[in-house]
Amino acid sequence: MTAPRKIIIDTDPGQDDACAILLALGSPEDLDILGITTVAGNVPLALTSKNARIVCEVASKTDIKVFEGCDRPISRALVTAEYVHGATGLDGPELFEPSMPVQPQHGVDFIIETLRNEPEGTVTLCTLGALTNIATALTRAPDIAPRVKELVMMGGGFFEGGNITPAAEFNIYVDPEAADIVMKSGIPVVMMPLDVTHKVLTLKRRVEKIGALGTKVSKFIVDMLGFFERFDVEKYGSDGGPLHDPTVIAYLLKPELFSGRMCNVEIEIASELTVGMTVVDWWQVTKRPHNAMVMKDVDAEGFFDLLTERVGRL
Amino acid sequence: MTAPRKIIIDTDPGQDDACAILLALGSPEDLDILGITTVAGNVPLALTSKNARIVCEVASKTDIKVFEGCDRPISRALVTAEYVHGATGLDGPELFEPSMPVQPQHGVDFIIETLRNEPEGTVTLCTLGALTNIATALTRAPDIAPRVKELVMMGGGFFEGGNITPAAEFNIYVDPEAADIVMKSGIPVVMMPLDVTHKVLTLKRRVEKIGALGTKVSKFIVDMLGFFERFDVEKYGSDGGPLHDPTVIAYLLKPELFSGRMCNVEIEIASELTVGMTVVDWWQVTKRPHNAMVMKDVDAEGFFDLLTERVGRL
Amino acid sequence: MTAPRKIIIDTDPGQDDACAILLALGSPEDLDILGITTVAGNVPLALTSKNARIVCEVASKTDIKVFEGCDRPISRALVTAEYVHGATGLDGPELFEPSMPVQPQHGVDFIIETLRNEPEGTVTLCTLGALTNIATALTRAPDIAPRVKELVMMGGGFFEGGNITPAAEFNIYVDPEAADIVMKSGIPVVMMPLDVTHKVLTLKRRVEKIGALGTKVSKFIVDMLGFFERFDVEKYGSDGGPLHDPTVIAYLLKPELFSGRMCNVEIEIASELTVGMTVVDWWQVTKRPHNAMVMKDVDAEGFFDLLTERVGRL
Amino acid sequence: MTAPRKIIIDTDPGQDDACAILLALGSPEDLDILGITTVAGNVPLALTSKNARIVCEVASKTDIKVFEGCDRPISRALVTAEYVHGATGLDGPELFEPSMPVQPQHGVDFIIETLRNEPEGTVTLCTLGALTNIATALTRAPDIAPRVKELVMMGGGFFEGGNITPAAEFNIYVDPEAADIVMKSGIPVVMMPLDVTHKVLTLKRRVEKIGALGTKVSKFIVDMLGFFERFDVEKYGSDGGPLHDPTVIAYLLKPELFSGRMCNVEIEIASELTVGMTVVDWWQVTKRPHNAMVMKDVDAEGFFDLLTERVGRL
Repeated sequence: MTAPRKIIIDTDPGQDDACAILLALGSPEDLDILGITTVAGNVPLALTSKNARIVCEVASKTDIKVFEGCDRPISRALVTAEYVHGATGLDGPELFEPSMPVQPQHGVDFIIETLRNEPEGTVTLCTLGALTNIATALTRAPDIAPRVKELVMMGGGFFEGGNITPAAEFNIYVDPEAADIVMKSGIPVVMMPLDVTHKVLTLKRRVEKIGALGTKVSKFIVDMLGFFERFDVEKYGSDGGPLHDPTVIAYLLKPELFSGRMCNVEIEIASELTVGMTVVDWWQVTKRPHNAMVMKDVDAEGFFDLLTERVGRL
Repeated sequence: MTAPRKIIIDTDPGQDDACAILLALGSPEDLDILGITTVAGNVPLALTSKNARIVCEVASKTDIKVFEGCDRPISRALVTAEYVHGATGLDGPELFEPSMPVQPQHGVDFIIETLRNEPEGTVTLCTLGALTNIATALTRAPDIAPRVKELVMMGGGFFEGGNITPAAEFNIYVDPEAADIVMKSGIPVVMMPLDVTHKVLTLKRRVEKIGALGTKVSKFIVDMLGFFERFDVEKYGSDGGPLHDPTVIAYLLKPELFSGRMCNVEIEIASELTVGMTVVDWWQVTKRPHNAMVMKDVDAEGFFDLLTERVGRL
Repeated sequence: MTAPRKIIIDTDPGQDDACAILLALGSPEDLDILGITTVAGNVPLALTSKNARIVCEVASKTDIKVFEGCDRPISRALVTAEYVHGATGLDGPELFEPSMPVQPQHGVDFIIETLRNEPEGTVTLCTLGALTNIATALTRAPDIAPRVKELVMMGGGFFEGGNITPAAEFNIYVDPEAADIVMKSGIPVVMMPLDVTHKVLTLKRRVEKIGALGTKVSKFIVDMLGFFERFDVEKYGSDGGPLHDPTVIAYLLKPELFSGRMCNVEIEIASELTVGMTVVDWWQVTKRPHNAMVMKDVDAEGFFDLLTERVGRL
Repeated sequence: MTAPRKIIIDTDPGQDDACAILLALGSPEDLDILGITTVAGNVPLALTSKNARIVCEVASKTDIKVFEGCDRPISRALVTAEYVHGATGLDGPELFEPSMPVQPQHGVDFIIETLRNEPEGTVTLCTLGALTNIATALTRAPDIAPRVKELVMMGGGFFEGGNITPAAEFNIYVDPEAADIVMKSGIPVVMMPLDVTHKVLTLKRRVEKIGALGTKVSKFIVDMLGFFERFDVEKYGSDGGPLHDPTVIAYLLKPELFSGRMCNVEIEIASELTVGMTVVDWWQVTKRPHNAMVMKDVDAEGFFDLLTERVGRL
């Protein structure tokens, strides 16, 4: 048996971030969560930090360390998404004031220190929000880039286009300069774009299976998803909302659920019209070097089976 | 019985342009071709002008008037696509020197004069290439914009992305400023993007049906498509190439073959990375006004049946 | 004695355009005005066309041919400058309805036809406004570019920056895409930027000398300048306003009044912040090819002496 | 007598940076140097860190703390200027291996910690190079922005244009995103652009006065300037090179040497052609808010007198 994989989860919960964290928390034999770093995004930093701790406490994992990171993008004003997630970012279940502390260290410093202290090539970064913390760490300490094993991100879109603008997906749009820094860093990137996440819909039967677990955690998830899916159901006319962020954790647990292609990804930062677009050269029409494994398809049933099984352990 | 619809075909043949012209030539009861204007694009202007006349002569329609338009984009260097169409633009069949003359009038002047002389709202522009001629006419004579019945274009892409770059389709990429002028002109636009044209593939059985017509015209088409499809078959691994341009003419003949949505389309002209992209707000995530009917789906069998039937009349 | 130089004046009067036209009209032994083409800019096209004819009639030169050109920029909405020129564009003197006709031919067609019919290298284009007409002619008929002897333009700025935005001068800002087309056309360009025109101020003593001529024309000029200079006097705290456009004509008459340097000029069209900027590589810090003679200094007294002498002949 | 002003010098020496540091070191009654932070720019980080310590040792000020900061710009590849400064960055005098240590703390952390620990509004940032360290500190710890008393920078240009490109000055060009972050931070900024620094030329008589001091420090300066001025003398044909960076320190010592204006400054980051330009709204043609005191003129003799006097104390 191999040792669990060391990960840092960088996140802005968000209901789907919460599900991703729970999926990781339910998989201790596979994943060793060195820390959770929070970032401004879906809602402001104070709320994402609070929500990350609420999620840990719901799962009775109060030993997890939560670090606060950057409270705004590198060079743009913060855009948030309360219209999707509600005013708290976790609308749906009954929320409470967490008793777990925020760690005193800054999230960016934690990322730098951890990557320097852990053996090279052993730490995986899992990013569920804007890439501000990672990019700031890379600017401040470029020596950490070659020490990262892999960065698995939820972000971007190509054949699916965007969700916050016609061209841009929310996580990249919030801090495109940060995404640009990450994509140029040389870190091996695995990208879960909307093309994947729009295929893992919270269909009624899938949510019911989770609900049938009958646990505190499962009730929390069901209550969150009941709120979360409203926005996309109305927008796309679909039966359920896309459960974006857990795909990142699912990839670490069962990579065979996903398929994609190595290709070049550039981030648009120059044009107002398309800013935040992930320009994916899927058909290799340019000679640009490959810098990311871009996923396109997913076994959605397998994904929900995995999610249900793992959160069932909590 | 209604009078045939008056159209101007603006084109840069190209094998698929040629098929579009033949589809129109085979439909005299539906379409009254006031003139064909040529533009630089797939190959340089001298070749597109020659090819347009070759196609008319193959169909024994030597009374069609062919006008030469602009020989390069409004403000960029000309990019051509011999790697798709061959050195002549019509590689495949045996070509010949056409005996039909080019009309002495400039294509742009013909467009302006025709729109001024014909009753308002009776002339449809069918554009199969870069929009240089139309945009130059609009700059020179903005009074013609409200006189156009409709402009049906092959161009752009949204969920399919681009073909010449990851973000841009060839016709728009060649002259993005021209496309921008057209999209802002107020003319009612119907757009046939790659999302549609990649669904009308020259499958072997479809081409064989055309070949079975046993006419001079059908042989010409089969010979063209034999060359034309090579590029896309290799690139996409598909069984046949996308027959882009005839969708424009097919829409005029049988609009019920297509389905789409009114939405906003903006043209990217500011960023090198994404220049020429048609930013389609398919999911209405912005408040920008609708300026185009963007097609997304097509009845491919119905399309090929129509094409086969009509070129069979020639 | 040599034959007078053949010129086309492309203009959007404007009080300073009017002075430029009068300077040319007063110099028939040096300049043969083949035609005046009007364009939208300082004020809308209907007014610039009217104003051009008023100026000719004030000078009793009713045989001059005035052609209407483009009524808006190539791909942007028209920006005008009534805050400088007044609602009529010629505020100051008493205006009247001109009896001279506008020629039936479009200004762009006149430019094309003239350049094709006159011997190669004999026609000079004098541009006093946005470059829409010239660029549209070049797009429509690129064969005319090598036939132009020289294009002398008022436009741009470098060490002086801009006047309509911090980075852009008005004539270029109004239609930057047109300026870009012209600068890339290969036509020999002489540029009179704000760096020159801000040195030819309508100082009181200079205007009084013109007034002392005691003619109908001199009174017309004095009345115009009385209004025109108000804006810049207030903005810059200077004693008099910059008489931009007549520098173009003065250069044709007495080039030794001006000094400058061959260098590369690029037009900014990509960025909202700096759009319309003329990026002049005065210090040759790039390897870009020289495409313009950019003037920087002027003998202001000599310039006003010339102006006074020539309008005194009318 | 007031207490000396607390400053952090952020620098990439560079001969003119070295003169600036020496000017500060010679003014202990006016300036309390909390630390020197180095950044990549004129030469790579290892050299700027070494050079900063060499300069302190030449002045026998080995108690000054030198911290290493960022080794490359936020999101672009590093551009250096050995063609101006020589391979070492301090070409000219005989150099040596400094014995002073680099402090163990990262420069960015030193900036953050100092601003948090010192009373609000007491620390001035003096930036002589690219703004990477400051911008990274601001992203990581936005709470420090309102604690900065003032940021005095050498950077940009407006009527003088640029030096590394026609539009951009070197310090801003190296890291435009960093400059953009700083200009939007709300920190009170005083800007010393090329418009000022090109007026403080190392004329022979001025350098001779420094040489006449006959000290080790004066010899070091004279040797540096002998090399440094070569580049600009050849480029501009001037008699001496522009002593850019010491203007920042001179402003702290004798602000009355400089004159300028409060205005809006935006940084161009969107366009390749003009990237790194400081778009200064000197003539207030926009309504954008004032965010910087931009200097335009300087008493050059007074400046050199001050420099000579202060380095004479070392």
